[in-house]
Amino acid sequence: MNIRTIDWKNDKVRIIDQRSLPQKLVYLDIDKPSDLRRAIRSMQVRGAPALGAAAALGVYLGVKGYMGVGWQGFSRRLKSAAKYIASSRPTARNLFWGVERVVLAAEKNKNKPIAVIKKIILDEAKKIMREDALSCRKIGSYGSSLIKEGSRVLTVCNAGILATIDYGTALGVIYSACSHGKKVKVFSCETRPLLQGSRLSCWELSRRGVDVAMIADNTASSLMAGGKVDMVIAGADRIAANGDTANKIGTLNLAILSRYHKIPFYIAAPESTFDLSIKSGEQIKIEMRDPREVTGILFKKTTAPEGARAINPAFDVTPHRLISAIITDKGIIRGPYLRNIKKILSGRR
Amino acid sequence: MNIRTIDWKNDKVRIIDQRSLPQKLVYLDIDKPSDLRRAIRSMQVRGAPALGAAAALGVYLGVKGYMGVGWQGFSRRLKSAAKYIASSRPTARNLFWGVERVVLAAEKNKNKPIAVIKKIILDEAKKIMREDALSCRKIGSYGSSLIKEGSRVLTVCNAGILATIDYGTALGVIYSACSHGKKVKVFSCETRPLLQGSRLSCWELSRRGVDVAMIADNTASSLMAGGKVDMVIAGADRIAANGDTANKIGTLNLAILSRYHKIPFYIAAPESTFDLSIKSGEQIKIEMRDPREVTGILFKKTTAPEGARAINPAFDVTPHRLISAIITDKGIIRGPYLRNIKKILSGRR
Repeated sequence: MNIRTIDWKNDKVRIIDQRSLPQKLVYLDIDKPSDLRRAIRSMQVRGAPALGAAAALGVYLGVKGYMGVGWQGFSRRLKSAAKYIASSRPTARNLFWGVERVVLAAEKNKNKPIAVIKKIILDEAKKIMREDALSCRKIGSYGSSLIKEGSRVLTVCNAGILATIDYGTALGVIYSACSHGKKVKVFSCETRPLLQGSRLSCWELSRRGVDVAMIADNTASSLMAGGKVDMVIAGADRIAANGDTANKIGTLNLAILSRYHKIPFYIAAPESTFDLSIKSGEQIKIEMRDPREVTGILFKKTTAPEGARAINPAFDVTPHRLISAIITDKGIIRGPYLRNIKKILSGRR
Repeated sequence: MNIRTIDWKNDKVRIIDQRSLPQKLVYLDIDKPSDLRRAIRSMQVRGAPALGAAAALGVYLGVKGYMGVGWQGFSRRLKSAAKYIASSRPTARNLFWGVERVVLAAEKNKNKPIAVIKKIILDEAKKIMREDALSCRKIGSYGSSLIKEGSRVLTVCNAGILATIDYGTALGVIYSACSHGKKVKVFSCETRPLLQGSRLSCWELSRRGVDVAMIADNTASSLMAGGKVDMVIAGADRIAANGDTANKIGTLNLAILSRYHKIPFYIAAPESTFDLSIKSGEQIKIEMRDPREVTGILFKKTTAPEGARAINPAFDVTPHRLISAIITDKGIIRGPYLRNIKKILSGRR
């Protein structure tokens, strides 16, 4: 049975509650911006591409009840709705990109009646979802050329169906290779603190019949040293103009370990994850999350000593020189990144 | 209040039940070899030096009830007791070393009455405990010269009081530096799957007033890249003649990350952790533990999807070329290790 991470159903945003997985597959119907913002902050919906769609729909939730008729009043409401959703989490580029796209679509049509503009916003959000599904398939298709029969792929966090609308970026590459009949073995780093690699990636990979084994994050170099990993593929939350890539904490570890063991390290992400307005990863704001995610397990049980302090950055930045290639919906980008990112994203080959 | 990880009290082995920490400080009194073996296997007592003492006491538990009078019968019982304890876990050198020491002490005195030989075995086990306490202090004293005022030290797992009799190896170095008035900041990797870095190291460091913050294992390179770590100090479970070092899974990760970030990476261990009978780390047997340690949290809650597979090696091997120095009770050993390990351990400077 196919699942859809995020959807527009019965005039509401329908998401899979990712905090309930893998124990239960629960859908949440959301029609208030505050509920959606909370769902984003608490990671009931997460993953950069999914956040792009969620943010766009969130802006629509913020304006759909607007009762006025003039553009000026509507524009104020639109901006405040956009700002509200954009303030939910700071790192994933797609979230801001989703907000900006629907705001721009509205502004381009500001002479139309408010009811029409509202519909344009919703249509744009739906278009983002359709495009995301398509771009994941393109990423998968380009990326699967890198995977050989029998390849053993290590991944981190969840850059799969649950991080996008329905196919995934890093895992999309694996799904695509499998659909071409290649046998792929996946190692999934459990990805502390929130265990997306265990709870989400193992769940969706197994559902699709992919051979997957999970490991504690600590085990990555041991597997590599034992010659058991052919490549690493990770997703991305934001990619700077020079190719520096922010992704889930631990990604930088894997990039360094891959370099040491001479294993290719790939990033898979759609164009919407690129932020060409920033020169390098140094300019990416890294979200610091609640230390209790680290001192405890999954929002509940505390395992650390009482009063223990913890540092909990949600992301790290992998310098471009450690990245073998970036697999995008426009093609595979290799270094020198500053030049090739611009060239390939603009379609000039 | 001082704690003692392992002790001989009222004719029984008294250990701190390390699975109950940090919630409860519980002592267990053990007088059956099978209970001690179970305590070792389930990691109620763990840490290479502590296992040396536990194993020696375990052999005594195995022979103390022997009712015969001849050496031959006793020797059979002794060998079977030794074999039984030695089969508990495969990686830590100290465990075998502890067994061998008491067996050798008995064999040297085989002409004495059995009651005397039994006492010699117990005395040898007690001597191991006294020596361990002393050698930890020597490690601390040598190692503290490497620590500057304000040093920020990253460590993994627990190589502290709870891994030894009462002072620690890697953490002993930190305690020693602190006792010399140096201010030290410690980052403790939580160390999945069993969270010894969180549950044990944070607990004992805080108890002794050391400034410690815990991190998810994934966060190590992010801290290093941010210039927040001055050195890594880890313990060891077995060190080969060439300096290759087996230690808790994840240690190799840290060694590689340290090299990449040009941070010194130190191992701290007593002479009893060295296994000069093996040439390199390739010959070290790595214990594979129950996958449920990874698919769940602390022996109870399952967090992974039903049926998820996991790979759970308890240790990895760090090649000697990634180790800046090995801090021992005989002095600080630097490369070339093959030569210098022999030289310094034999006392020839």
